[in-house]
Amino acid sequence: MQMDRHSHLWRNAVAMPTVSRVAVCGGTHGNELAGVYLVRERLKRRADGTEPVSVVTVMSNPRAVQLCVRYVETDLNRCFTRATLSAPVSETSPYEMIRSQELNALLGPKGSAQAVDLLCDLHNTTANTGLCLITYSDCDWICLHICKHLQREMASTPVRYVHFDIPLNEAYSLDSVGKHGFAMEIGPQPHSVVRSVIFSAMQEGVQLMMDWICQFNSGTLFEGGWVDVYTMVKNIDYPRDSETHVITAAVHPNLQDRDFCLLHPGDPMFLSFSGETLRYKGKEALYPFFINEGAYYEKGIALSLARKRRVEIPSVRSETLR
Amino acid sequence: MQMDRHSHLWRNAVAMPTVSRVAVCGGTHGNELAGVYLVRERLKRRADGTEPVSVVTVMSNPRAVQLCVRYVETDLNRCFTRATLSAPVSETSPYEMIRSQELNALLGPKGSAQAVDLLCDLHNTTANTGLCLITYSDCDWICLHICKHLQREMASTPVRYVHFDIPLNEAYSLDSVGKHGFAMEIGPQPHSVVRSVIFSAMQEGVQLMMDWICQFNSGTLFEGGWVDVYTMVKNIDYPRDSETHVITAAVHPNLQDRDFCLLHPGDPMFLSFSGETLRYKGKEALYPFFINEGAYYEKGIALSLARKRRVEIPSVRSETLR
Repeated sequence: MQMDRHSHLWRNAVAMPTVSRVAVCGGTHGNELAGVYLVRERLKRRADGTEPVSVVTVMSNPRAVQLCVRYVETDLNRCFTRATLSAPVSETSPYEMIRSQELNALLGPKGSAQAVDLLCDLHNTTANTGLCLITYSDCDWICLHICKHLQREMASTPVRYVHFDIPLNEAYSLDSVGKHGFAMEIGPQPHSVVRSVIFSAMQEGVQLMMDWICQFNSGTLFEGGWVDVYTMVKNIDYPRDSETHVITAAVHPNLQDRDFCLLHPGDPMFLSFSGETLRYKGKEALYPFFINEGAYYEKGIALSLARKRRVEIPSVRSETLR
Repeated sequence: MQMDRHSHLWRNAVAMPTVSRVAVCGGTHGNELAGVYLVRERLKRRADGTEPVSVVTVMSNPRAVQLCVRYVETDLNRCFTRATLSAPVSETSPYEMIRSQELNALLGPKGSAQAVDLLCDLHNTTANTGLCLITYSDCDWICLHICKHLQREMASTPVRYVHFDIPLNEAYSLDSVGKHGFAMEIGPQPHSVVRSVIFSAMQEGVQLMMDWICQFNSGTLFEGGWVDVYTMVKNIDYPRDSETHVITAAVHPNLQDRDFCLLHPGDPMFLSFSGETLRYKGKEALYPFFINEGAYYEKGIALSLARKRRVEIPSVRSETLR
């Protein structure tokens, strides 16, 4: 009976290529410090050669890290569209545009057979998100299985799968360079600060990802199941003065820190600086996330809203075995 | 009996000059946003002229506010020493050095009879400090009475009095320009972010300060009592790599967010990125504050330590009445 079930699972498992080359990147935003210090730690330990998978560890934006700012000239994590990666650059191009092409040469090229199998890019947010894997696909079984593994193994950190429904050509972030990829985003942590519990959660998340990859590569069959996927629907900006564009309200105390708690039509959304409550005017209850992220004031985003659905994922195994 | 007690109190109250000219400053650090938005709100409402006290509201560092950074060239809130205020400046001097002399001309000159009677400078910190009045004196009865008033009236915010034992000539911060003065420091709030509860606490703190001043000026006698004063003893830096000076540990999870909770010799202080606990090696139990403040990484301060003592303050009344 046990054997029957096992061979049934084995026959029905999706066979996928091994995940042989992995990139772990941090400092893509230079002031998101858990990733910066995690990459520094990994680079110190690099020489021992004991990793059972080929891992390249990259400090993505060393100039921004040096200055402890998000970016020097333009947001590096918006430079990985097909258009920007293929644009001609010169000495006067923004540093991050040049750097994105260097990273694409090192870890990609994006969309090619030479690209790393999995790219994990480490990020922090001031929002109370817990750990999110942010991806461009809701049917990447590798990413979804890694997410399921983290959800099962991480005791004290909520783990969620966030999906940006954007075609790969337009996908703008570093993780889109890998064959599989995600941003591992953990909050809340102020930018330019490292908090020990956030650093430890990131360390644990990366280690669990590596464990999963090693088990997968060595032939372990991972049973399918269900994963909640949060697909981004829209962004909402702060209320702003119509002339000066200066914000006139902060996120409402009832909403602040309630990332991934369902927001209903009519719920308080902002509290203006003069004391007025502004409510969510949408018709559909949605899940807010990136609530009051510090770096998004300049992008006109007070929070993002997502629709949640359960995605069934198949059992998977690596195709090199059996 | 009641009358006797009252006249006894009245006779023994210290008579002090009215607090006629008040300055409320924000944006001294351009990315500490509760103060920035509070000053903007006050400037919008300025025209109505209903304030019963002469209040000047100042955006201290407009260029840094514009860029949403702490400072442009040098930390403005270190430019108010006697030496810096009297140094010759030219067009090539750092912007903040020029601006400090402008502010000193507007609100001071520091130490002169023309200086504002009270200068309240609004700040935020990433540390979990609650509301602190930070001063250079442990015997400024006006500041101590305002602190007592806030402690009595603020329901949901802990209010503390912090004393930096530095002579006035060397006092480096904007609040030292007023005859009385303090930084009103509220946390935790990430820099470049405004959180509604922190904004509201600051708004309430400023309003309660104004209420106290109006009552004081109009002849109310404020009874004496005791106030806990935290006097800064020393700063402690992060553990750093001896060659690169890069930090090698974060504040320990047991200490993070425990501002003003007594730290005993041997208590965990840092957790290194490789997992080692480092302990407080001092001989004396002290009160930590500014724990893991984001802007102090560059200053080599992971936390400050203070000694607490109770200071008896006399009853006070304004000297213009009776």
